[in-house]
Amino acid sequence: MRIVIAIGGNALLQHGEIASFSHMQTHVEQCAKALAPVCQVHEVVLVHGNGPQVGLLALQNHAYKTVPAYPLDCLVAESQGLIGYLLQLALANVLTRQTCVTLLTQVEVANDDPAFRTPTKPIGPFYTSAEKRALESEQPHWTFTQMNDEWRRVVASPAPKAIIEQSAISQALANKQLVITCGGGGIPVQRDASGKLSGIEAVIDKDASAALLARKLNADRLIILTDVDGVYQDYGLKSAHLLTTLSIDEANQLQLAQGSMAPKVEACVDFVTKTGKTAAIGNLNQISAILAGEKGTRINLNKALA
Amino acid sequence: MRIVIAIGGNALLQHGEIASFSHMQTHVEQCAKALAPVCQVHEVVLVHGNGPQVGLLALQNHAYKTVPAYPLDCLVAESQGLIGYLLQLALANVLTRQTCVTLLTQVEVANDDPAFRTPTKPIGPFYTSAEKRALESEQPHWTFTQMNDEWRRVVASPAPKAIIEQSAISQALANKQLVITCGGGGIPVQRDASGKLSGIEAVIDKDASAALLARKLNADRLIILTDVDGVYQDYGLKSAHLLTTLSIDEANQLQLAQGSMAPKVEACVDFVTKTGKTAAIGNLNQISAILAGEKGTRINLNKALA
Repeated sequence: MRIVIAIGGNALLQHGEIASFSHMQTHVEQCAKALAPVCQVHEVVLVHGNGPQVGLLALQNHAYKTVPAYPLDCLVAESQGLIGYLLQLALANVLTRQTCVTLLTQVEVANDDPAFRTPTKPIGPFYTSAEKRALESEQPHWTFTQMNDEWRRVVASPAPKAIIEQSAISQALANKQLVITCGGGGIPVQRDASGKLSGIEAVIDKDASAALLARKLNADRLIILTDVDGVYQDYGLKSAHLLTTLSIDEANQLQLAQGSMAPKVEACVDFVTKTGKTAAIGNLNQISAILAGEKGTRINLNKALA
Repeated sequence: MRIVIAIGGNALLQHGEIASFSHMQTHVEQCAKALAPVCQVHEVVLVHGNGPQVGLLALQNHAYKTVPAYPLDCLVAESQGLIGYLLQLALANVLTRQTCVTLLTQVEVANDDPAFRTPTKPIGPFYTSAEKRALESEQPHWTFTQMNDEWRRVVASPAPKAIIEQSAISQALANKQLVITCGGGGIPVQRDASGKLSGIEAVIDKDASAALLARKLNADRLIILTDVDGVYQDYGLKSAHLLTTLSIDEANQLQLAQGSMAPKVEACVDFVTKTGKTAAIGNLNQISAILAGEKGTRINLNKALA
């Protein structure tokens, strides 16, 4: 099977952990171990998130005053370098039968996407109210959103329209490479009337890019991995229970948290609706069981197929 | 012809300029325009330097105190993301007949390379004596070297032994991609007795990696581009004159500045000695004339071949 697997930035770092090299390295190595059995058997394309990492790069850029901070598209590119490298290195050490390659990937968005007016994508660490107020006075153009009793910076997250390096990705797959691509949702670029590409400040949702990629590559499965076991009804409440299967109608009716589970379910619905194939959401450490249909939440066109 | 072209970090930024996004973008676009005619006709592999950029990333990492600075191998990976993206974007806008791909590239070095005892590779901006003293007290483990009346940070620059992603590079070339690889000399990794790879703190010389890559890819030419017109006898003196051709014996006898022209000549000598083919050093804006043998410094096995 050809499988597009998306790994959350949160699967690479736990809530409350600083985005340090040692934390990253630990989680990336666990991630590589969890993925290896699937990568050995199937044709895998790996897409990763970058929320904590691109947020750190922004904070580092603003802390060093001598050179103006780089735009977000450049920071996404840097995060593709960092996370791609760490994943590639960790995978090389656990894979026995194939090699792994990271392709820098640009993803086209519309410069009039309504997302540019309403930032929703959380990046960087969680802040207390006091930390958030301090940052607001330093960076008046940054937007924040409240998550329980903490805050996070949010940036524009336009919809992916096209993957610029799509043909190179297909070629690398045909050459039996395990491909890491569309890191952090891809480097956001826009195309002007003459066809010229330029960078644009945004962070594309990696699940949305993974769904687009899965469609374009004619993948058999889209698997979105995170640090929870799947989609829950009443998540956080006493009545919470895992939804093991969802039709797209059921998925569309769920009330889910923006910025965490909602984009994952939307990405799955997009893939399933347009291809008729199956998508799944689940815990990184249960990847084999998710593929076997024993764990996680499976999303199909109709309930009967699940 | 299959040509490996190495572009200096200095060709992407001029002396005294801060490593800002706008400066980078201007130079990268000029670079893409200069390279385009050659890329349209020949099979080109592009290697770029990263001295100013990886130095900036180190300064940004140290300025943000909340998260410990990432090791140099990670910063090289980030610089591959940044510079690869900007080059790829600029090239996509000027190329009409092929597409361009950036491969994250790890390069193996020996962890007992004597270079780890004597740092020589300059990274980051030029500092006044006062700036250098201030940095020394903040970062006691950083080493600096004097360049005329300014200072620069220097880091270990071990010799490249193997290019981990070599087969993926060959495959991308076979698929008619213009390949950007070994950025900043490659992400330095070491291999332990069991074959396991891990990152190591260093910045590999990009000309040395380009020479190794050119040999491994069986390239017809190695071209090293910078902001001067070639190798000069008596550079900086009144008697200065461009050396249009050099045999490897002549090249080996030259007295050249460490950290600027010396590694370029050494890389050419390595390639020419081991392959019998021709290498050249010259100005980025004269790339076509350099290939035609009309500009720059050509290095051959014997003077007669030049």
